[in-house]
Amino acid sequence: MEATILPLLATEILIPVAAVVGIVFALAQWLLVSKVKLTPGKTGSSKDGVSDFLIEEEEGLNDHNVVVKCAEIQNAISEGATSFLFTEYQYVGIFMVAFAVLIFLFLGSVEGFSTKSQPCTYGKDKYCKPALANAVFSTVAFLLGAITSLVSGFLGMKIATYANARTTLEARKGVGKAFITAFRSGAVMGFLLAANGLVVLYIAINLFKLYYGDDWEGLFESITGYGLGGSSMALFGRVGGGIYTKAADVGADLVGKVERNIPEDDPRNPAVIADNVGDNVGDIAGMGSDLFGSYAESSCAALVVASISSFGVNLDFTAMCYPLLISSMGIIVCLITTLFATDFFEIKAVEEIEPALKKQLIISTALMTIGIAIVTWVALPSSFTIFNFGEQKQVKNWQLFFCVAIGLWAGLVIGFVTEYYTSNAYSPVQDVADSCRTGAATNVIFGLALGYKSVIIPIFAIAISIFVSFSLAAMYGIAVAALGMLSTIATGLAIDAYGPISDNAGGIAEMAGMSHRIRERTDALDAAGNTTAAIGKGFAIGSAALVSLALFGAFVSRAAISTVDVLTPKVFIGLIVGAMLPYWFSAMTMKSVGSAALKMVEEVRRQFNNIPGIMEGTARPDYATCVKISTDASIKEMIPPGALVMLTPLIVGTLFGVETLSGVLAGSLVSGVQIAISASNTGGAWDNAKKYIEAGASEHARTLGPKGSDPHKAAVIGDTIGDPLKDTSGPSLNILIKLMAVESLVFAPFFATHGGLLFKIFN
Amino acid sequence: MEATILPLLATEILIPVAAVVGIVFALAQWLLVSKVKLTPGKTGSSKDGVSDFLIEEEEGLNDHNVVVKCAEIQNAISEGATSFLFTEYQYVGIFMVAFAVLIFLFLGSVEGFSTKSQPCTYGKDKYCKPALANAVFSTVAFLLGAITSLVSGFLGMKIATYANARTTLEARKGVGKAFITAFRSGAVMGFLLAANGLVVLYIAINLFKLYYGDDWEGLFESITGYGLGGSSMALFGRVGGGIYTKAADVGADLVGKVERNIPEDDPRNPAVIADNVGDNVGDIAGMGSDLFGSYAESSCAALVVASISSFGVNLDFTAMCYPLLISSMGIIVCLITTLFATDFFEIKAVEEIEPALKKQLIISTALMTIGIAIVTWVALPSSFTIFNFGEQKQVKNWQLFFCVAIGLWAGLVIGFVTEYYTSNAYSPVQDVADSCRTGAATNVIFGLALGYKSVIIPIFAIAISIFVSFSLAAMYGIAVAALGMLSTIATGLAIDAYGPISDNAGGIAEMAGMSHRIRERTDALDAAGNTTAAIGKGFAIGSAALVSLALFGAFVSRAAISTVDVLTPKVFIGLIVGAMLPYWFSAMTMKSVGSAALKMVEEVRRQFNNIPGIMEGTARPDYATCVKISTDASIKEMIPPGALVMLTPLIVGTLFGVETLSGVLAGSLVSGVQIAISASNTGGAWDNAKKYIEAGASEHARTLGPKGSDPHKAAVIGDTIGDPLKDTSGPSLNILIKLMAVESLVFAPFFATHGGLLFKIFN
Repeated sequence: MEATILPLLATEILIPVAAVVGIVFALAQWLLVSKVKLTPGKTGSSKDGVSDFLIEEEEGLNDHNVVVKCAEIQNAISEGATSFLFTEYQYVGIFMVAFAVLIFLFLGSVEGFSTKSQPCTYGKDKYCKPALANAVFSTVAFLLGAITSLVSGFLGMKIATYANARTTLEARKGVGKAFITAFRSGAVMGFLLAANGLVVLYIAINLFKLYYGDDWEGLFESITGYGLGGSSMALFGRVGGGIYTKAADVGADLVGKVERNIPEDDPRNPAVIADNVGDNVGDIAGMGSDLFGSYAESSCAALVVASISSFGVNLDFTAMCYPLLISSMGIIVCLITTLFATDFFEIKAVEEIEPALKKQLIISTALMTIGIAIVTWVALPSSFTIFNFGEQKQVKNWQLFFCVAIGLWAGLVIGFVTEYYTSNAYSPVQDVADSCRTGAATNVIFGLALGYKSVIIPIFAIAISIFVSFSLAAMYGIAVAALGMLSTIATGLAIDAYGPISDNAGGIAEMAGMSHRIRERTDALDAAGNTTAAIGKGFAIGSAALVSLALFGAFVSRAAISTVDVLTPKVFIGLIVGAMLPYWFSAMTMKSVGSAALKMVEEVRRQFNNIPGIMEGTARPDYATCVKISTDASIKEMIPPGALVMLTPLIVGTLFGVETLSGVLAGSLVSGVQIAISASNTGGAWDNAKKYIEAGASEHARTLGPKGSDPHKAAVIGDTIGDPLKDTSGPSLNILIKLMAVESLVFAPFFATHGGLLFKIFN
Repeated sequence: MEATILPLLATEILIPVAAVVGIVFALAQWLLVSKVKLTPGKTGSSKDGVSDFLIEEEEGLNDHNVVVKCAEIQNAISEGATSFLFTEYQYVGIFMVAFAVLIFLFLGSVEGFSTKSQPCTYGKDKYCKPALANAVFSTVAFLLGAITSLVSGFLGMKIATYANARTTLEARKGVGKAFITAFRSGAVMGFLLAANGLVVLYIAINLFKLYYGDDWEGLFESITGYGLGGSSMALFGRVGGGIYTKAADVGADLVGKVERNIPEDDPRNPAVIADNVGDNVGDIAGMGSDLFGSYAESSCAALVVASISSFGVNLDFTAMCYPLLISSMGIIVCLITTLFATDFFEIKAVEEIEPALKKQLIISTALMTIGIAIVTWVALPSSFTIFNFGEQKQVKNWQLFFCVAIGLWAGLVIGFVTEYYTSNAYSPVQDVADSCRTGAATNVIFGLALGYKSVIIPIFAIAISIFVSFSLAAMYGIAVAALGMLSTIATGLAIDAYGPISDNAGGIAEMAGMSHRIRERTDALDAAGNTTAAIGKGFAIGSAALVSLALFGAFVSRAAISTVDVLTPKVFIGLIVGAMLPYWFSAMTMKSVGSAALKMVEEVRRQFNNIPGIMEGTARPDYATCVKISTDASIKEMIPPGALVMLTPLIVGTLFGVETLSGVLAGSLVSGVQIAISASNTGGAWDNAKKYIEAGASEHARTLGPKGSDPHKAAVIGDTIGDPLKDTSGPSLNILIKLMAVESLVFAPFFATHGGLLFKIFN
């Protein structure tokens, strides 16, 4: 086998350099955002000074009270979010430590905690480090992944709560300025996370290598713990945050908008702070953890397969680091892409927001295609072999290019389809809005049908990517396809985080009593944000499907089963039960949101009834109690669904063995993907159908409005139903899929030796 | 191999005798129902004469006008239903003929329309009839199945429209009398269908045997066309009828209940006749065709597997007829069971309705267990072999008993779980009702969560049945487990058909202007009917899952693939796309209902606005236009989803080959089952939550009511959303699952020789 063009030393330098560039760029963006001052006296100034060409009439720039108020509200939101996350992390921390002990015990027991070297699993003629080492390092990697995920989520939240009031203040100068602030803040998060994930993984590999030396099989088997840690944390983040945000949101809407007829985010609503805190802990922190998890897992899946392919067997470190080099290239590409949104062009009107965000997707995908070609050319030998369920498959480097590229472009397709089905610029959402004419029932029927329909093309896109990459390069092909889809994660996160930031900015404008026009501007940002949030979820789900399949394949290889034949009873029952799990999980999370929202409604009603002057705005509502209700509910309610996901692979693998577990993984994958996509698109469509009616931007929309009309009320009901679908159960499902797969992979050595107890007893 | 206890002659006699007994019993029940006279002058008399112990106060018995009015309304409903079904059958007839031609051409082309005998597929040393014979007989069997299905649905509709006004009139004498009338009518349908399905299949086998002689492999391969015909017809019946009924129902409710605040079934509502017609063409005719299809397919699946097992190889006709003997025993058992509801006990109060129906399930299951034991003992040799993917598996007769019995009892478990989640006697529905306090949004969230949750236990029940029967007797075990679940089909259909009949009876009471108390009695019957309808759907879905798996197994055997390995690209893409199909299908059907309902709403609004005196009851609304809207919409809209289901296996098999098709079948099976169960339970729960509030039977229910209160309005919205879920998309999904499987099996010879064109081109 020939060598790679890129020398080892260059690989060792390039990866950390790319990460550092990403971090520096994030800090630079942060600096620009921080120029918007939250202290009165100095009105916000952009980098070009006050002599800017005014793209829209400025308004209220000199009202210092507004600045003070915005700062106050931002503080309240930030404090609420910080305090919730700390509480959440305490509980999750206990769980994580317990689970880490479990990992150690299960994996250590594989060879009875022996410290002797053992014949390798794949290369039987060589000796590998003992299973105990795998237990120790997997546990360490698990904790590392969990901590990185935690930090990612926390940082994201901090940035978002730093940016939201600044976006509001910039909105006084026009929609273009506000857009740039929100987008830059999203970019801070996107780049920090991408760079962070890359650099921690890189350091971990290099540190583990000090012990493992040439035993790469063991090294990368342990590294998969990183993916498990990342996703476990993400699960609790998504579920806990999701319940928090939607309990508050649904509760606030049900009393505020529906019963009391006061606007969204009205400061008189006692649940308003909890609602805004929720956006930051759910949509931002949860999503940050989630995408970090996907990224970590797809890297781990690729690495573990590569370690038993010719890269690993020949100890070719550059080729081995191909996944990390792709991510490094991704950071650079996204950096250039970001400049298109913030520096090369300027948003001048509301209609330009969505195209600008869409352009981000297109530019990053186009540039990244070139980037992938370069990385593939320099970092891979022209021909190599890939482990494919017991045999080695010959692969050319250009074939691998196609694998990564098809994942990347499938992501773009999913993004555009999602946009089509959730943006109110197109007929699907407009049809849903139109169905509000006949009331909430038809709105719900049309919305559900829209969500179901929106599944079709993404599934075909995923299926084609799987077929091509699977055929070209087996499981490694799938893993790098997932990586391709996530290679532009920095941009993806930037436009995704932009949404909740704009949402919060609108909330702050409302609460600070700013004028109607400011609110209209933030609403326009927010409507585009709903679409980008749905796109982000589309990416998360699409990549989760690919990642899980790759992990599943790695698990099957590691568990030493040669086929997963649907037509064996053990596999089939796994398949059908696995397909049921997403429903069970969704039932839990939706019921949790519903119950927590009911409690919230009671509290909000109680305050409206018992605190005199609250409706007149003379008395301050008791925000803290509402924050507490959301906190308590989400902490309590995140445990059962979390436990369901974390324990299922352990129970199935231990009691029923690897065949049934394979069935469960396949079943939950193919069923969960559908529900996840349809749930987030249905929810996104309802939200934007409501916004479509509220904005009244077209003749058609005005016949449905204005706010408070019957069709609008019906639209609000749809929006409320969509909340838990799109922000709690839907996005959690992709974590369910990939977490079960990565967990099975980590525990595969245990299951392979001790699994299937029940059948062993009966046979 | 030893002989069976039951001699051949006895088998040949027992099966038709059981069928005749079933038909005679059905006619006897019909005679009893017909004693309730619809001509004025003689008030309805029950078989015990007028000296009955009056279980409730009689009311309005002497008002002859009411009888005339009831007869009139019944006529209108019956005419509407008949005319719709004829229109539907015309369109479907064309499709069926075209599809029959397709079957002939595809199957005939397998050996180039050669008329020479060929070596058998399984026993290569023997000669079998040519593929052309298979083409001809499969086509004939297909048409036979379609016609039987059509007759089953039509008869059911005729009986139901004959019984509904009679139930109304009996309700004047008390709830017990009305219950017996409705239940007897359901029994007429149940027994006619079960006997009909059995006798046609039996005759077909005997006629085909005249040609095929000892070539049982070819004989039973052709017979599977019967299952395909039955299910194809059922698909259009369910989809067309489902769109019809729900367009009318949703349309009527949206304007009548929500906007105009008039009661359900109010004669002033122009869509009211269409709504009542819909119950008969959708719930009754559709469901009749559906369950007949399941029955036909499970019999065919068992027969085709048996034909290549020792029964077929040894030409043991009695053992071969085991599935038919089980069904024969089922008819006798159900006959005895029915007497428990109609003769041995009497309903004296509203609270006794649900227990009486539940007792039907328990009694029939318990008796049938003994029945299965007897049939297994006399009709099977004590030991035999079953074809299991290329090898013969040794099976004992008592093992087969367990297979059938576990299917039967799994059906009971599914029935009870369904009852628990959809009856308003238990906390799940009461919780949903309670969530209406905070509006429609929480109602929908709780309802969806309930549906998702209700999937868990049924899936475990199905999984356990599959595991046990699969392990004991391979695919034959699964097929007979499905048959076990359907063995009490006569009782299942009776309690299922009872629901729409009661619903219609209530409608007629309202339209005939009968007193509030009569309506209360029919409402009580109807509330129990919602639960039994959900139970019926549970059976239909559970059996569909088992049937499809058995058919899938038979297909895999026939297509000569040895494993369906998830971890091959061809299979996996099939799996994920297959799992998407139920969503695609649901999107189509729900959108169809939504659009048709919108048209209905416009028409109803137009009539309310333009016909003076309609609200005062002085002018007659134009019922015919509403009937026409429903008819046109359902005829037009049933084609695309029907085509999706019918063409998918053909396209996938022809272009991508049998492996991908196997994936599609497995994927749609495991994903479709979940949506089907959750959709029907969610819908059933919403309907009963509304009825719970309306009835106000408990302290809790009264705090939510009365009719017209805000919680009630929220409940009505949920009910309306549930309509297409529970009566259109949900129940159609089980047909999707099994139809694709049986179609693949019928076309398997073609796919095995000519399939996978696309891959053939590229390789």
